[in-house]
Amino acid sequence: MGKRIGVLLSGRGTNFEALADSVAAGRIPGAAIAVVVSNREGAPGIERAKERKIAAQVIPSKGLEREAYDRQVVAVLHQHKVDMVCLAGYMRLLSPFFVTSFPNRILNIHPSLLPSFPGLESQRQALEYGVKFAGCTVHFVDENLDAGPIVLQATVPVRDDDTEETLASRILAEEHRIYTQAVRIVLEGQYKIVGRRVVKTG
Amino acid sequence: MGKRIGVLLSGRGTNFEALADSVAAGRIPGAAIAVVVSNREGAPGIERAKERKIAAQVIPSKGLEREAYDRQVVAVLHQHKVDMVCLAGYMRLLSPFFVTSFPNRILNIHPSLLPSFPGLESQRQALEYGVKFAGCTVHFVDENLDAGPIVLQATVPVRDDDTEETLASRILAEEHRIYTQAVRIVLEGQYKIVGRRVVKTG
Repeated sequence: MGKRIGVLLSGRGTNFEALADSVAAGRIPGAAIAVVVSNREGAPGIERAKERKIAAQVIPSKGLEREAYDRQVVAVLHQHKVDMVCLAGYMRLLSPFFVTSFPNRILNIHPSLLPSFPGLESQRQALEYGVKFAGCTVHFVDENLDAGPIVLQATVPVRDDDTEETLASRILAEEHRIYTQAVRIVLEGQYKIVGRRVVKTG
Repeated sequence: MGKRIGVLLSGRGTNFEALADSVAAGRIPGAAIAVVVSNREGAPGIERAKERKIAAQVIPSKGLEREAYDRQVVAVLHQHKVDMVCLAGYMRLLSPFFVTSFPNRILNIHPSLLPSFPGLESQRQALEYGVKFAGCTVHFVDENLDAGPIVLQATVPVRDDDTEETLASRILAEEHRIYTQAVRIVLEGQYKIVGRRVVKTG
């Protein structure tokens, strides 16, 4: 029986496109992207979804209290019979209501080696701090910012001549790679969470 | 003209031994370890230094105010005509007096990918957080804990069956490797510091 993924985004959603490519290529066996939701009007990711004939919907968040908004989003995800939720550049914290609606079934990808450089502009933070390795992290989502148990990470070197753009691009290639792997691990259920550690059981 | 290294330690000083091996093997051309200082009586690193015929001295820190203590240590380093200082498991913060006595000439090695997991028991912190990559960092020392511009880092994977001991041992092998490299970079002067970034110029 197929697994249905819901994707939330606020902008370009390049990680949505990477997941859609992986699904289309059979790299996440039995999975389909059921619906894409944006909290922002005009998010390019919505157009990209429509071009791929994937259901896509804007639910504007402006002016709404967090849980009231999340109830609308969760209702849409349930309508589309979503099994798991992938955040792809979704610029909102989730309410406890949302998190408990999909227990251990919400993933996010963040462009740093968490717990270093949470929040915005992680690549710039990394460059300015002067780290020699940067990377990205796929983690389960809870109601805190860039927290939750880590499913996968990948590292990339920082080069002396890197700009924010060249570093972000090197990290993005790894994001696309490990997000697909992480979704597969979670959908296949071949893991357990021990404390904060995500350990494979397959 | 040879470069003279002073090493400060508080315990085993395995990184002192790795540096001493590198010096003996010619991997840090023209360098010698001039003196080893411990702030603790009975630090095994002192015995190891003596076995290698390296000058070694305990200067007990107990009960002394930070700068008063550091003035004693700096005096000993100057007596031994030290060009640069390497901390190797030295369990004290340095005073501004110490830091300004050797500007950009004090290195420390820390068993994490800073800025993640500063302070004590970094390997345990990393395991408990559930990161998938750990590592180590060689950085210039200022008066703050595990801060200062980063010269080199190395990463190691964290395995599902790792204990604190197996992870620490995997990191330690990388510590020994990059500390030698970093000392060489600093002694050869082939770098500049731009903001917090240490950039090679050689």
